[in-house]
Amino acid sequence: MDIETNETNQIIDVTFEVESEVEKEVKKRKIKEGICIVSIPHVSAGLILAENEPGILKDYINILNKLVPAGNYQHNLKDTNAESQLKSMLLGSNQTILIEKGKITLGRWQSILFVELDGPRKRHINIKVIKNDISP
Amino acid sequence: MDIETNETNQIIDVTFEVESEVEKEVKKRKIKEGICIVSIPHVSAGLILAENEPGILKDYINILNKLVPAGNYQHNLKDTNAESQLKSMLLGSNQTILIEKGKITLGRWQSILFVELDGPRKRHINIKVIKNDISP
Amino acid sequence: MDIETNETNQIIDVTFEVESEVEKEVKKRKIKEGICIVSIPHVSAGLILAENEPGILKDYINILNKLVPAGNYQHNLKDTNAESQLKSMLLGSNQTILIEKGKITLGRWQSILFVELDGPRKRHINIKVIKNDISP
Repeated sequence: MDIETNETNQIIDVTFEVESEVEKEVKKRKIKEGICIVSIPHVSAGLILAENEPGILKDYINILNKLVPAGNYQHNLKDTNAESQLKSMLLGSNQTILIEKGKITLGRWQSILFVELDGPRKRHINIKVIKNDISP
Repeated sequence: MDIETNETNQIIDVTFEVESEVEKEVKKRKIKEGICIVSIPHVSAGLILAENEPGILKDYINILNKLVPAGNYQHNLKDTNAESQLKSMLLGSNQTILIEKGKITLGRWQSILFVELDGPRKRHINIKVIKNDISP
Repeated sequence: MDIETNETNQIIDVTFEVESEVEKEVKKRKIKEGICIVSIPHVSAGLILAENEPGILKDYINILNKLVPAGNYQHNLKDTNAESQLKSMLLGSNQTILIEKGKITLGRWQSILFVELDGPRKRHINIKVIKNDISP
C-alpha cells in the first residue's frame, strides 16, 4: 500500500486501509483466525498502535522532538536525517495484530498510525495475513 | 485473559498465565513448534519482555516518568492520560514469542510483563498461538 | 545463531546471517511466502531494523546513553546493569520480517542490527520461519 506524506512530521491513520486489505484476503482465503503483520520498509518513519485524537497526535510528535532534539549527530556529517532515524528506533517499524472471526481485533482506542518523521516522502506499508491452522 | 490493576503505575508478571494458556492450546492442537503473539488492546499500558526483579521494576517506572514527565500536553485539554499514552508508545503493545518442543522459549531473565500506566483499571491480554507447518 | 560481542555497547549487523539461515529453511520447506521472527533471549540487549552506517550507529548508542544516563538505579543495589536493561526496554527484543518469493523483504536502508548494551558477552539470536498457507 502506498501513501504520500506532505509534512516533515506527520501522523497518518491507516486503520481503514489495512482493514480493507485484510478483509479482501480473509474472504478470498476463507480465513477465520490468524494474524496480520503490518510493516514499513523505512528507517526514518514509525508504525504504532495508538489513539487518533488531534491533541495526542501533537503530543506524540512533541515528545519525540524532546527526546531526540535537533543536534550535532554523527550521521548528519554525511546525511541530514539522524534525528528522524533515532526517533524511528524508539517507535519500531512493524506491528502484529490478531485476526478473530475474519476481522482485525484492535482495542477501542487503538488505531494503526503511520508516523512520518522525515517527510514529505512517498512511503510504503506492507501487509501480510497469516492463516492460523486451528485443526486439532 | 483478564487482569485487574490497582495502582496508577504497576508492573504485573503474566508469564505463568501465558505459559498455561499456551500449554493448553499446544496439547489440544498437537503443536510442536510455532509462535505465540501476546497482545494488549490498550493505548495507556505496555507489554514488555524483561526481568522481574523488584529493583528494576521500580527503575522501569521511574525512567518512564523521567522521559515523559507530567506536563501540559495537548491531549490533557480533553482527557487526563496523555503521559500514560506517550509512555505506552515507547513500550509497544505486542510481543511475538517462539514456541519450541511445545513450550514458550524465553531467555533466562525474560518475563512477560504487563505495564499498567494509567490504573487502576480492568485490562485484557490476548494470546494467539500460531502453528508452524514444518512439513518439508 | 551464536554471536560474541567485545565491547560494552556495540552494534552488530546480522542481516547476512539471518538471510542465509532463512534461505536454507525456505529451500528445504519450499516456502514461497511467510514471515520470519528474529528474537533474542536477552534483557540487556536489543534488536532493531535500522541503517548500518558508521555515523548513525554511534548516534544510536549516544542517544541511548543520553536517555538512560548512568545513575543510581534500584537494580544496581544488587546487580550492575540497570542502565542496559532500561535501554533494552526502549528497543525491544524481537522483530517480524515478511518473506516474499522465498526472500526476506527489508527496505533499502534496513539492516537487522543486534544492539549489545552490556558486553562483552556471548549472545544468541533465534530465528523462526513461519510458512504462510496461501491456498484459497
